[in-house]
Amino acid sequence: MGVHTSTVAIVGLGLMGGSLALALKANRAVKKIIGITRNRATLDAALARGAIDAASDDMQILHEADIIILAAPVRTIIDQLPRVGELAREGALIIDLGSTKREIARAMDELPSRVFAVGGHPMCGKESSGFEAADETLYLNKIFVLTPTARSDENAMSRATELARAVGSRVVVLDAERHDQIVAAISHLPYLVASNLVSTVAAWANGDEQVLEIAASGFRDTTRLAASDTEMMLDILLTNSENVAELMRDYARSFAQLADLIYGEDEAKLREILERAAAKRRALFVGQRDAN
Amino acid sequence: MGVHTSTVAIVGLGLMGGSLALALKANRAVKKIIGITRNRATLDAALARGAIDAASDDMQILHEADIIILAAPVRTIIDQLPRVGELAREGALIIDLGSTKREIARAMDELPSRVFAVGGHPMCGKESSGFEAADETLYLNKIFVLTPTARSDENAMSRATELARAVGSRVVVLDAERHDQIVAAISHLPYLVASNLVSTVAAWANGDEQVLEIAASGFRDTTRLAASDTEMMLDILLTNSENVAELMRDYARSFAQLADLIYGEDEAKLREILERAAAKRRALFVGQRDAN
Repeated sequence: MGVHTSTVAIVGLGLMGGSLALALKANRAVKKIIGITRNRATLDAALARGAIDAASDDMQILHEADIIILAAPVRTIIDQLPRVGELAREGALIIDLGSTKREIARAMDELPSRVFAVGGHPMCGKESSGFEAADETLYLNKIFVLTPTARSDENAMSRATELARAVGSRVVVLDAERHDQIVAAISHLPYLVASNLVSTVAAWANGDEQVLEIAASGFRDTTRLAASDTEMMLDILLTNSENVAELMRDYARSFAQLADLIYGEDEAKLREILERAAAKRRALFVGQRDAN
Repeated sequence: MGVHTSTVAIVGLGLMGGSLALALKANRAVKKIIGITRNRATLDAALARGAIDAASDDMQILHEADIIILAAPVRTIIDQLPRVGELAREGALIIDLGSTKREIARAMDELPSRVFAVGGHPMCGKESSGFEAADETLYLNKIFVLTPTARSDENAMSRATELARAVGSRVVVLDAERHDQIVAAISHLPYLVASNLVSTVAAWANGDEQVLEIAASGFRDTTRLAASDTEMMLDILLTNSENVAELMRDYARSFAQLADLIYGEDEAKLREILERAAAKRRALFVGQRDAN
């Protein structure tokens, strides 16, 4: 059964779930979308905006779905999975949109063998959250990581791939362990670096408003991630704490080295390190326009 | 004598000097602009683009100028100042565009008493450099810090203010010491944090291209400053090393605390710190659109 003829239930209609519903609708990618959340106002808003065809605050409705998308924060997904597994019909495919994959994949491994499950992580960041922020273009041209579990077979992977492509994403398959290491480096560490920059400068400024008023676009961009939703980030950090802590130690070690070189005014060595990073950064996003 | 009727000499026609020339021209703000650099190709390009009225590779021409703008990197400005002071005519006003001010202000204090001098720092960042990148809108709506020196009087400050406003900037007067502390926090520290993030992640990835290919807009924005011109940044860091090193130590201390809380999964304390930073960051750039 292809995605095109499937009934899709989306549990959680925040930024990620809401945007997925809008994108599936905009692309006429599935037969029917059922939105599920305990928040009645969100269900009403999603119906009004045409993001979903049916609304429910009761998970029982999951038995109607061919594909179940779990779009809550990571630890909520982990809590939901056993019950979702009970309620899902035979052959149903469960996909989550959580930002870490190892603990979710473990929970998926425990699902009953009559259902299928694939871990998912669409790499589309945005500091805003909630259904109000949902956007049908959120997934467009973004990487959508898929993670096989003990409940994945070839057909499950191909249905999940079809769904991700239907909203314009590019699929990358990664095992859960490797995924979590990579996002610790390219997503969780940058968030902590940005957050700590805001904390450090705010503490140093000690209430002097002029300090931050003078801040130009460089400070704005470097700290953008610090404004991310804290509850979502806690879920992420606390389900990936070992990888994150290890990278933080790496970061702290080279930062201390840099501080020593600056304090000691070792120009040649500083030039080498800073120029290597600059060259790497320039090569990285060739053709992508930086914000100014 | 007002800026409007002045002959302005600009020494250095890179991004900052070139953009200033273009902006002064676009606003018909001065009588005549003389461009000075040893690079003949740049002089030709600046003449061809109509940024300057006259071109020279010889500082001797400075005696024709009412206002002299020094637009080289910080340590070059410091080297140039004694000779500029000799060549400048009586009553001339010297303004620099260097990114740190304490060492430049000290050099300005030593200028002959027949000239005037005001330190300047336009807060307009851009990773590109050189005259090719010059842009007549670079200074528009940006903060232009002015720093009084022993060679500043009321008239000198008011001429410098008029010049900065003529290119659309907003003037903030700060003493050199305070300026350097503030930019260490809001500009130099963010650069080092970004550069070290690139270094750390690149070292960790160890040549695995997939890691950085998956990086989304969050990593791109957090690391944007890392691509800044290394020579310019070395000039800045090495003329502000004490302030920068002190802030790096503050940063490292709270980063280590954060790592401990993550490793120890201390959710309540983590929430408090991360939420405080998020709230601060959200309040900071209200009304300014972040890049996505």
